[in-house]
Amino acid sequence: MSTPDSSPPSGTRDFLPGEVARRRQVFATIRRVFEDHGFAPLDTPAFERLDVLLGKYGEEGDKLIFKILRRGEHERTGEADLALRYDLTVPLARVMAQYSDQLGEPFKRYHIAPVWRADRPGRGRYREFAQCDVDVVGSASTVADAEVVMVVAAALHALGLDGLDIQVNSRRVLAGLIETYGIPPELEGSTLVALDKLDKIGPGGVVEELRDRGVPGEAVDRLSGDLAGETLDGRVREVLGESEQGRAGLAEVDRILQLAGPRVVGGKVRFAPLLARGLAYYTGPIFEVVAPDLEASIASGGRYDDLIGTFTNRDIPATGGSIGVERVLLLLESGEEAATPADVLVTVFDEEAAVGAVELAARLRQAGLAVDLFPDTGRLGRQLRYADRRGVRFATIRGPDEVEAGTVTVRDLATGEQQQIPEGEVAGRLRDLLGAGPAG
Amino acid sequence: MSTPDSSPPSGTRDFLPGEVARRRQVFATIRRVFEDHGFAPLDTPAFERLDVLLGKYGEEGDKLIFKILRRGEHERTGEADLALRYDLTVPLARVMAQYSDQLGEPFKRYHIAPVWRADRPGRGRYREFAQCDVDVVGSASTVADAEVVMVVAAALHALGLDGLDIQVNSRRVLAGLIETYGIPPELEGSTLVALDKLDKIGPGGVVEELRDRGVPGEAVDRLSGDLAGETLDGRVREVLGESEQGRAGLAEVDRILQLAGPRVVGGKVRFAPLLARGLAYYTGPIFEVVAPDLEASIASGGRYDDLIGTFTNRDIPATGGSIGVERVLLLLESGEEAATPADVLVTVFDEEAAVGAVELAARLRQAGLAVDLFPDTGRLGRQLRYADRRGVRFATIRGPDEVEAGTVTVRDLATGEQQQIPEGEVAGRLRDLLGAGPAG
Repeated sequence: MSTPDSSPPSGTRDFLPGEVARRRQVFATIRRVFEDHGFAPLDTPAFERLDVLLGKYGEEGDKLIFKILRRGEHERTGEADLALRYDLTVPLARVMAQYSDQLGEPFKRYHIAPVWRADRPGRGRYREFAQCDVDVVGSASTVADAEVVMVVAAALHALGLDGLDIQVNSRRVLAGLIETYGIPPELEGSTLVALDKLDKIGPGGVVEELRDRGVPGEAVDRLSGDLAGETLDGRVREVLGESEQGRAGLAEVDRILQLAGPRVVGGKVRFAPLLARGLAYYTGPIFEVVAPDLEASIASGGRYDDLIGTFTNRDIPATGGSIGVERVLLLLESGEEAATPADVLVTVFDEEAAVGAVELAARLRQAGLAVDLFPDTGRLGRQLRYADRRGVRFATIRGPDEVEAGTVTVRDLATGEQQQIPEGEVAGRLRDLLGAGPAG
Repeated sequence: MSTPDSSPPSGTRDFLPGEVARRRQVFATIRRVFEDHGFAPLDTPAFERLDVLLGKYGEEGDKLIFKILRRGEHERTGEADLALRYDLTVPLARVMAQYSDQLGEPFKRYHIAPVWRADRPGRGRYREFAQCDVDVVGSASTVADAEVVMVVAAALHALGLDGLDIQVNSRRVLAGLIETYGIPPELEGSTLVALDKLDKIGPGGVVEELRDRGVPGEAVDRLSGDLAGETLDGRVREVLGESEQGRAGLAEVDRILQLAGPRVVGGKVRFAPLLARGLAYYTGPIFEVVAPDLEASIASGGRYDDLIGTFTNRDIPATGGSIGVERVLLLLESGEEAATPADVLVTVFDEEAAVGAVELAARLRQAGLAVDLFPDTGRLGRQLRYADRRGVRFATIRGPDEVEAGTVTVRDLATGEQQQIPEGEVAGRLRDLLGAGPAG
């Protein structure tokens, strides 16, 4: 007889109590920082209508969307009408189109929730993972872009991360580069992909990749010279001066550096002229946060002024950022399991003693104690080991001897000490032992 | 040009900030009661492999499962391999089979999370809704069943619900009735469905339905007499005495009444001999909690000793309960929106003043204040209305006059009073005004 498979689906995880507690602590920290910066929570369904999501994430993104089969008589068609959300930004855009009257503008929202992508699973890459997003909707000002960078950095800092490399660029800077270097429009996408790899494969690698992708030799030669030196930033600034798009993009970037740069704790904000970011919907400033210990980014974001307009007939500017909290969790020490154990375990001596045990648990609960009632009868040793494993400090024991004497034995699981306490005084004594004040 | 649809999918909801806060408060209350009773949190993926879910919820339940289409080259097959979880119990059973060594037994877990059912949407009935579950795994004792009833009642009481009708029965009681009344086995299911409606359609309605369903005349006549009187409970006890199953079921029920009955606050526990509960996997005691203001149940549960065994080669007894929190939310007063506003809004006078505003916000944040930075420039009136709508108490204003004087204007939005404060003293004064202690 074979054992059925009881593992979770590929790319997903079960979280046991200690891990739930640790994740909750991280989410609570991020949430506090978001709220203290004036962001308000929104929540949206796990799935959206399929047409809401399709076409928003580029061709590759569309392939990774989990689609939900139609139901009832339509199931046979094999068609999907719904899909699990792929990020928290497109649902926000839909919500802003639907409720903008109620929410007003500008609106600063945060959303901490799972998203689903049918990606190939790997270390730190899952098919179900949490995102922590902040967005400012209804403002075209770079003050909003800077605030997003600052709040994301503050949240990461609050989690204990430091030495962050916060890279800022603008889609307009990239457009300016494409224009000035004379890259044909149809090669824009693949050129940006190649340039984005500079940190990883170096100038030589980028040049090779550009040639492979069919970028004209003249443009490659010019790029090759500019990429090689230590003066990338300076050269790019010169080059961008030749394009109106480029100048506008550079002004945005410099404004964000000016506003956020000196005020970010735990990291350094810098211009990263080749940073591209994958998502199709960005229109202006973009950013990415890299932790010193990781190659991949742990937070990113950007401005998407046209996305909400696809759900309404009015353009609503917006900018936001997202913390890739699964990677952050990998970086943080696993630390102590922060589960909150009960104050006391009420053991159940045997079936006959069960009524008395349940009654004792009820009275201790009324006195304000957190009481775990052992949900079974049987060997006391097993019950005490249960308490020990859960980190419970005290256990009560009430067998025939105690019943006859009208007492309860209280055992300190840390020291093994036991004392007999008159029934009516157990709650008070336990409160004293736990260092709690009088019941109240 | 038509406006695209920006509503959420049928049967699902978007939650705006006030509603998120209210739901969170309810979940936090339930969670605190669960933890204070010694239950530990688990979390599982939103979807499971389809075969994990199929066959667990009865034929009708299977039809309501949201199925996820296979991906990549398999998408064309129109087949599903995954499905959104339908409840939190089957995932728990899988988890217990997978991690029982790590978790130990007995194991008391809680899980508060959304589940998905493709039901016809209606008032208080959604396709995405939260469940709040407690379960005790690894104990066959009625102490565990009683503890589940007590913790569910305690959570509902903590939410302010009172006068609850807590109905307890056992699947074995029902089996005993079926046996004693001589109902043919193939009519067992439909007989239970009819009996379960006694409260709604009365004895006459039940008798009629039993006849329609083809129950033999003799059995219907006997049932008819027993259902009519005020003495249902007593008659059922007599009838059950004739069956071994029935006697065992009655003993379970009486034990739960004895253990939990006198100790439940906010409600009354009673024997409900015709309570059936829909789910296929129950094997022993079952219960349902009805609130006086609602016809439907707001919590329910039962013992399912065979379910975990379908994922492992070992039988592991288990019992649990679930709070239907969406119905509870309908019952609770909507009350105040419990959003937590920032302490102060830093307004941004104009683009030129933006650097100073961002700097002021950063300094106030360093001083420990919750600061909302207005993420745009422009008319002051609009910025103050934003603060007002969000419930923010103070706003800072720093225009050319203030810059020249080295001051910041602090406006109390409740009174409209304004005062000029030297730049270096703003954080301290705001802390005083907010009644906070010294920084630090």
